[in-house]
Amino acid sequence: MHVPLELLMGRLPLILHIMEVIGVLAFAVSGVVDARKQRLDVVGTFVVAFATAFGGGTVRDVLLDRRPFYWVDHEGYVLLIFVMSFGASFVLRVVSRVASDRAMIVADAIGLGLFSVTGASLALVAQMTPTVAVMMGIISAVFGGVVRDVLCNEVPMILRDRSPYATCSFVGCWIYVGMTWLAVQQEAALLTGAVAIIAMRLVSVRYGWKLPS
Amino acid sequence: MHVPLELLMGRLPLILHIMEVIGVLAFAVSGVVDARKQRLDVVGTFVVAFATAFGGGTVRDVLLDRRPFYWVDHEGYVLLIFVMSFGASFVLRVVSRVASDRAMIVADAIGLGLFSVTGASLALVAQMTPTVAVMMGIISAVFGGVVRDVLCNEVPMILRDRSPYATCSFVGCWIYVGMTWLAVQQEAALLTGAVAIIAMRLVSVRYGWKLPS
Amino acid sequence: MHVPLELLMGRLPLILHIMEVIGVLAFAVSGVVDARKQRLDVVGTFVVAFATAFGGGTVRDVLLDRRPFYWVDHEGYVLLIFVMSFGASFVLRVVSRVASDRAMIVADAIGLGLFSVTGASLALVAQMTPTVAVMMGIISAVFGGVVRDVLCNEVPMILRDRSPYATCSFVGCWIYVGMTWLAVQQEAALLTGAVAIIAMRLVSVRYGWKLPS
Repeated sequence: MHVPLELLMGRLPLILHIMEVIGVLAFAVSGVVDARKQRLDVVGTFVVAFATAFGGGTVRDVLLDRRPFYWVDHEGYVLLIFVMSFGASFVLRVVSRVASDRAMIVADAIGLGLFSVTGASLALVAQMTPTVAVMMGIISAVFGGVVRDVLCNEVPMILRDRSPYATCSFVGCWIYVGMTWLAVQQEAALLTGAVAIIAMRLVSVRYGWKLPS
Repeated sequence: MHVPLELLMGRLPLILHIMEVIGVLAFAVSGVVDARKQRLDVVGTFVVAFATAFGGGTVRDVLLDRRPFYWVDHEGYVLLIFVMSFGASFVLRVVSRVASDRAMIVADAIGLGLFSVTGASLALVAQMTPTVAVMMGIISAVFGGVVRDVLCNEVPMILRDRSPYATCSFVGCWIYVGMTWLAVQQEAALLTGAVAIIAMRLVSVRYGWKLPS
Repeated sequence: MHVPLELLMGRLPLILHIMEVIGVLAFAVSGVVDARKQRLDVVGTFVVAFATAFGGGTVRDVLLDRRPFYWVDHEGYVLLIFVMSFGASFVLRVVSRVASDRAMIVADAIGLGLFSVTGASLALVAQMTPTVAVMMGIISAVFGGVVRDVLCNEVPMILRDRSPYATCSFVGCWIYVGMTWLAVQQEAALLTGAVAIIAMRLVSVRYGWKLPS
């Protein structure tokens, strides 16, 4: 995840910027929640929250040989996650009061949507083929969660839970890549792909869609 | 594993090409088998099969700072694994009918042999010393299996099973590196090293050789 | 960990060189101990010991895009760990006779201290900001242990044990970075940071300090 969109489009449109903040926070909070379940200490909480929020984008950047990483250029997020880890129980109390479970699912879906399309777009910038771009989009969006679960010694959720997650990312990345191929304006393509992923994710949670196992 | 042998020798000899296809398929199928055991969904099956088949070569390329990755240049394999994941239960039924357990062990040994020597050869191309080249050969051949087991939340098989596996790779890589040092023709050196690994692996399985623990 | 300090300062001062040897050995031995607990075979023991000793530094170098890795340039360590893995039970007997548990804690603290500050210093050389340099220092020092625990299928010790470990690295890296910012001589800054970490670690073990969970 976590893309210097500025690079892609000159200026980051406000809507995508807001989505990014929501996504990073949602991912980090999901890391904090898991860390608390495993009764990790402050350091463990920070590591897991950080890995959940930035693991996917970092792996993508290593694979694409891109530098600097997003979090290297945006230290504010690192600091924020650091502070969150210290006040983890406070953060979780506030989150559980302010944001219902439903709100957290929406926030997570926003992260999934945005980080998928921006990941795919960075791969296209790096001259990758459409198939590879879609894979990079998926990696950007879901790999953080895989690392989180491996650190917490669980079989990664996205590999066993049959609720569509990577699948939504897959479909939306192809939508984005297809629109790019049709020379649609970047901003519109990114937004359409992201919204498609978010919608698909929310609908599939709402109606309990399941993948075949 | 997974080496643009064309780069090494101008033209890929047919025998090595056939070994490569067999090896990739054997590794991918072993990923599918493990994913089914853990009752992963379609996405999980794809991720584990893909990581088993290409994880080792990708880590080697990251360590050697080589691009593009093998699977970036050979999307056919990605598509094949994708299709296999959808028809996983069908694939496993066919595999279990067509290929006995013994055939799977042979196919896996072929992958082990080929990916070891080609991994070592890429490290030599990148000016690594013989010791590092041997380590890269081993990483190429066995790391995919380590990732597969970590994702499935198991202590990696190759670390605890005392049946020689990485050990065969180790011996064969030294044979290959030694022949290269003796200026033997590349193709012959690769084939000798690979065949030595395959033979050693099969003999050790056949007679139940065990490493000390 | 594991830094070509020669690059940083022309000539490696003897005291830092001795600390490095102690640190690498302490980390490798901790890998061997864990591998024995899991009853891994010789290959598994080597992999876990190697990953514990060099995993942190290798990940840091991948993140900073530095080559060659420390162990590529210092094959002696690779060989030493290789030999240690073969004689693992012998090594552990000797270690348990020569070195008390207390000595092992001191040796491990020395590794923690040295690899933290040298990791941070390499990040500064690569033009990273202070915050990123501190993170790279921590990664260099503790990531090997995380990989060790993931391979042995445990929730990483440093994430759940509430005894300060990464925290000591964090504080000492800031001391080092601060002294660098104040233009203190490199060698003195490295030594001060490392000693601060070692002292903090030993005091916190001695008095049973705990982080909040």
